Amino acid sequence: MQIHRVVRDLVTTKRNYWLAAKALRVVEDEGGNLEVALDPVGAKPGDYVITIGISAARLAAGNPNITTDLTIGGIIDHWSEESWRN
Amino acid sequence: MQIHRVVRDLVTTKRNYWLAAKALRVVEDEGGNLEVALDPVGAKPGDYVITIGISAARLAAGNPNITTDLTIGGIIDHWSEESWRN
Amino acid sequence: MQIHRVVRDLVTTKRNYWLAAKALRVVEDEGGNLEVALDPVGAKPGDYVITIGISAARLAAGNPNITTDLTIGGIIDHWSEESWRN
Amino acid sequence: MQIHRVVRDLVTTKRNYWLAAKALRVVEDEGGNLEVALDPVGAKPGDYVITIGISAARLAAGNPNITTDLTIGGIIDHWSEESWRN
Amino acid sequence: MQIHRVVRDLVTTKRNYWLAAKALRVVEDEGGNLEVALDPVGAKPGDYVITIGISAARLAAGNPNITTDLTIGGIIDHWSEESWRN
Repeated sequence: MQIHRVVRDLVTTKRNYWLAAKALRVVEDEGGNLEVALDPVGAKPGDYVITIGISAARLAAGNPNITTDLTIGGIIDHWSEESWRN
Repeated sequence: MQIHRVVRDLVTTKRNYWLAAKALRVVEDEGGNLEVALDPVGAKPGDYVITIGISAARLAAGNPNITTDLTIGGIIDHWSEESWRN
Repeated sequence: MQIHRVVRDLVTTKRNYWLAAKALRVVEDEGGNLEVALDPVGAKPGDYVITIGISAARLAAGNPNITTDLTIGGIIDHWSEESWRN
Repeated sequence: MQIHRVVRDLVTTKRNYWLAAKALRVVEDEGGNLEVALDPVGAKPGDYVITIGISAARLAAGNPNITTDLTIGGIIDHWSEESWRN
Repeated sequence: MQIHRVVRDLVTTKRNYWLAAKALRVVEDEGGNLEVALDPVGAKPGDYVITIGISAARLAAGNPNITTDLTIGGIIDHWSEESWRN
């Protein structure tokens, strides 16, 4: 799993059926690279989260038909900018 | 999922059976790296899209027999060159 | 598989059902990049471990329903900072 | 999918059962990084091709038992060194 | 598939059940990055091999229950340091 910080929500009016009505968040890694994750957990901008990829992302979405390759798996309790730098 | 910008269509006369007759788009990421995505959504050059990888790409294609590892999952409403730079 | 060093435990009170009650470790690679791995082996900070990714990560977790994309598969007997530099 | 240029054939006398008798090509990406792809299409050195990864690579090989993680999916009609640089 | 050179064996006394009694090799790519691959082929240090990743790695191991994400698929006949530099 990766450690990501939630940046903001993502709005896409024209969207794949299985992603429709799902919350999508723009997340960034330590280097500031952006990805989009499905969020069944309810994370807010600024939260540090663990994200799950590969086929496990679909399971973590609660339904393996959901077409996600990255899903938020949990909100990290104690993490900050400094934790990233060790 | 990743955020990509559609660059142009891709023409391949000699093509795998399951990709035949499917729209393929050349997409680029923030760094200008090119990939090829299957497009069931109908995106146009210049559109910012979310792309789905891993096994979820096949589901997002509408038929898990379709041999894609990257599928366009939606067109992003508000995204621009500046959003990429945060 | 990758070679990782265990850095520390990861605490997430709000967590995906299938990850609940599982030990998660922050691990780093040779370059200091951090990832999070599920640990069914009982590794301690400082241990050098092999980590298993892709769908094999779920199998290595002992139950393919567990939503992990990275699982510790073993503790390496003889490895040190120098082994990483060859 | 990725865009690759075929460099040459790969000869391996001692080979996995499911790869035996299959054509393997060394391919390179824009940056000159080499990978090995199974080729059910019949590409020749110098051809620009799209390559399919992930589990879709096995489907694209025509038999999901074939142990490939990268398969040539088609030969691109109009592509050149300049297309790679946009 | 990737091209790797076998560096040495890997010893892990405390190991995942499905990896137990399997030969594991430390392999390096052109850039010297290290990974660990399961070896059903019998490669020796110094051999250039093709390695198979993703779910195909488990198939290439001869039993899809084996928890590997990288498996040696064959020994390359004619490859040397120079082949890597094209």
